[in-house]
Amino acid sequence: MNNIYMDNNATTMVDPLVLEEMMPYFSEQFGNPNSIHKFGTSTHPAIAKAIDRMYSAINAGDNDDIIFTSCATESNNWVLKSIWVDKILNGDKNHIVTTEVEHPSILSTCKFLEDQGVKVTYLPVNEKGIVEAHTVKNFITDKTALVSIMWANNETGMIFPIEEIGEVCQTKGVLFHSDGVQAVGKIPVDLQQVNVDFVSMSAHKFHGPKGIGALYIKNSEKLTPLLHGGEHMGGRRSGTLNVPAIVGMGKAVELATTNLDETMSKIAKLRDRLEDALLKLPDTVVVGDKNERTPNTFLISVRGVEGESMLWDLNNDLIGASTGSACASEDLEANGAMIAIGADVELAHTGIRLSLSRFTTEQEVDQVIAAFNKATVRLRSISSSYAKVQPTKGGEATECAIAH
Amino acid sequence: MNNIYMDNNATTMVDPLVLEEMMPYFSEQFGNPNSIHKFGTSTHPAIAKAIDRMYSAINAGDNDDIIFTSCATESNNWVLKSIWVDKILNGDKNHIVTTEVEHPSILSTCKFLEDQGVKVTYLPVNEKGIVEAHTVKNFITDKTALVSIMWANNETGMIFPIEEIGEVCQTKGVLFHSDGVQAVGKIPVDLQQVNVDFVSMSAHKFHGPKGIGALYIKNSEKLTPLLHGGEHMGGRRSGTLNVPAIVGMGKAVELATTNLDETMSKIAKLRDRLEDALLKLPDTVVVGDKNERTPNTFLISVRGVEGESMLWDLNNDLIGASTGSACASEDLEANGAMIAIGADVELAHTGIRLSLSRFTTEQEVDQVIAAFNKATVRLRSISSSYAKVQPTKGGEATECAIAH
Repeated sequence: MNNIYMDNNATTMVDPLVLEEMMPYFSEQFGNPNSIHKFGTSTHPAIAKAIDRMYSAINAGDNDDIIFTSCATESNNWVLKSIWVDKILNGDKNHIVTTEVEHPSILSTCKFLEDQGVKVTYLPVNEKGIVEAHTVKNFITDKTALVSIMWANNETGMIFPIEEIGEVCQTKGVLFHSDGVQAVGKIPVDLQQVNVDFVSMSAHKFHGPKGIGALYIKNSEKLTPLLHGGEHMGGRRSGTLNVPAIVGMGKAVELATTNLDETMSKIAKLRDRLEDALLKLPDTVVVGDKNERTPNTFLISVRGVEGESMLWDLNNDLIGASTGSACASEDLEANGAMIAIGADVELAHTGIRLSLSRFTTEQEVDQVIAAFNKATVRLRSISSSYAKVQPTKGGEATECAIAH
Repeated sequence: MNNIYMDNNATTMVDPLVLEEMMPYFSEQFGNPNSIHKFGTSTHPAIAKAIDRMYSAINAGDNDDIIFTSCATESNNWVLKSIWVDKILNGDKNHIVTTEVEHPSILSTCKFLEDQGVKVTYLPVNEKGIVEAHTVKNFITDKTALVSIMWANNETGMIFPIEEIGEVCQTKGVLFHSDGVQAVGKIPVDLQQVNVDFVSMSAHKFHGPKGIGALYIKNSEKLTPLLHGGEHMGGRRSGTLNVPAIVGMGKAVELATTNLDETMSKIAKLRDRLEDALLKLPDTVVVGDKNERTPNTFLISVRGVEGESMLWDLNNDLIGASTGSACASEDLEANGAMIAIGADVELAHTGIRLSLSRFTTEQEVDQVIAAFNKATVRLRSISSSYAKVQPTKGGEATECAIAH
C-alpha cells in the first residue's frame, strides 16, 4: 500500500512536467536575468513565457501587473502593510475590513497593524461559512482603506461571493484585495469579470514549486514595495528573480487552469464519492454545500473523535490529512472555521479536512474510506465524549448546527 | 569554445551536488513541514541538517537564530524596516548609519525610510574603498537605532573592518547589521569572533539555488517580522518552508565553507593571474589592494573604454562579465563604487567587474585575457575620449586617483 496524500490544500506535489521545465535553470541557464550578458538574457524568453501563462490563467489585462513574490504570505503581507503605509500612515484612512476566517498571513498581519493603531473589522462568516456582500457593505466607512476577503476558504473550501463584494467595493471606492490561494487552479478566476484590485496566489497549491507566489495588481495600482532594492519587476518587488521557480509557476498554472472544468469535475466526482461515503457514518457532518465549495475539499466532523486522534490513525494507515490550515497545525486549538460558523468547541475539535488533487485516484479514495471507517469505530470505542452522546444509528447528524 | 562565466558576484551556477540533494524534495518528499502527518514530518531531518550546516558555516551560537528568508533583499528589508517599526515608529530613535556603497536593497530601503521621516547618514568610503570604524563612531548619536554596513563590497570585493565596527557599535550600545552576501563562502565569517547583531546571506551567491536567503540574529534579538502569518520559524518569518531550497542552501554553504582557505587560495591564484595580466595593458587600474579584497573579485578600469562596450565585446566572445551590481545593471549610470572612491565620472564609466568561482579554470582565465586584450585594442582604436589622453606605453596607470 502506497502513501496516500489527502492534504492538497496545505501543499501539493510538484508535477513532474513542471519540474522538467524547471531543471535547465538551476545549473545550465543559471544567469541573473538582470545581467546584460547572454547568461542573463538567455533566461528572458522563459520568464516571458511564464508571465504570459500567468496572464492567461487569470485573464489579466494589459494594464494589470502580475508580480512574482516568494509566496502568498509575502503577497498578503505586501498588500496589507503597504496599504497601511500608503493610505493610513501617509494618508487619511484608518480602517481595514477582513473576515474571521482568513489565512494566518492576513490575520497575523492585521494584529500587527492593530498594534500600529489601525482599526480592523473582522467579519464573522454566516451559517454557510461565507460573508455576504451586503454585510461587507455595512462595515465600509469613509475611513476604510482596504477590504481583504479570501476567494475560497482553505479549511472548508467555501467560495466567497467575490463578484458581489467587488461591486460593493467599487461602488464605495475602496480597494479590494482577495487571497486567491485556494481559488486559482481550482475554480475559474477571470479578472476581467470581477472587480478585484489585488489577488494573492501561490504556486505550491497547484502542483508548482514552493517558494514562489504572485500578486495580481489591477491597473498597476500604486502600492509601495514590501521589498525595496534593485528595481526588479519594474521596481515593484526587488530581489534576484528566482528563474526556475518562475518557470515552474508558469507551467504549473497553465496545467492547472487548462481544461479546468474537465479536471475539476473528475476531482469533484472523487471528492463526492469520498464525502458521501464518510457521511454514511453516524453523527458526521460536512461544512457547507458541495456546490458552493472548491471541487477538491471538504471539512468533516466526526462527533466524539478528536481531530488529532483521527489524523494519527489515518497517518498510521499511510494517509496524510489535516485538521485545518497547515499554517496553524502545530497547535491543538479548535478549528477556527468551525467555530466561526457556530459549531460548539467540542465539535470544532473534531474537524478533519480532506483535500484531493488531480493526482488522486479512485483506488486511493476507497482506501481512505476503509481507513476512515476503521478509525472512527476504534476511536469512538475509546471516546469518553462520544459515550455521552446518543449516537444516531446509521443516519445523518442530528445535533449539529452546521449545515452540510 | 565554451561560454565563460566571470560574473559570480551577480549569481552562481547551482553546484550539481547541491541540486542532487534538493531533488527528492520537489515531487517525492513534497509535504508541508508544518503538517503533522508523515508527508510533513519526513522533511524535518533534512531541514534540521540544513540548519546545522548554516550554524557551522558561520559559527553561530546556540542562543542565536538563523532564519531562512526568500533572499538577501528580503533579509535586508526585514532588518531595516523592522528596526524602523520597533525603534523609531514605536521608540525614541530616529537615525540609521549606513554607507554610500551598500547594495540597492539597503540604499532603496533607506530612501523609503527617509520618506517616512527617518534620518539616514550615508558614509562615503575612503580612497581604499572602505569605511573605517572611527568614521562610523563619529556619526553614531544617542538617536541612532542601527548601523548597517556591508561585510564585503559586491563591486570592488573590498572587505570592510567588521570586527572594529562591531566593537564601536557594542561600545555605543547600537545594533549592528551587516549585509554578508559577498562575504559568506568567500572569506571566513565567524560570528563568535565579531559583534554583529544581524547578518544577511544569500544562497545563490555561493552555488546554492535562487529564492533562498537567511538572516542571522544574535541572541535572538527582538525584530518584528517582515512576513507575519502561520508562525513558521518560531514566528519570526512566516510562509510555507521552501524545503528543496533550504536543503540546497545548507548543502551549498557547507560546500562553500569547508576547506575555505584551500578553495579560496586556488581561486585567488586564478584571479591574480587574470588581474595581473590585464593590468599590463596601459592605462588600466584596479580598485583596492588585492589582500583586502574577497579572493574572487576585481573591478578594473580601462581608460577610454566604456564599460558597456567592453561587456558587449566580451559577450561576443562568449564571456559574461559585469559593469557592477547586476541589481543596477540595466541602467547605464557611472559605477557607484568608483565614484565613491573619488574616480572622475569618465573613468567611472569604464569599470568592469570580473568575479570568479571554484568552477573557474585556468584555461578560461587565459581565454578571458586574450579576449580582453583584443577588445581593449579594438575599442580604444574607436574611442574618442582615449584619443585625447596620452596613453602610457605598456605601463601602469599614471592619471588615475584610484589606488590599486
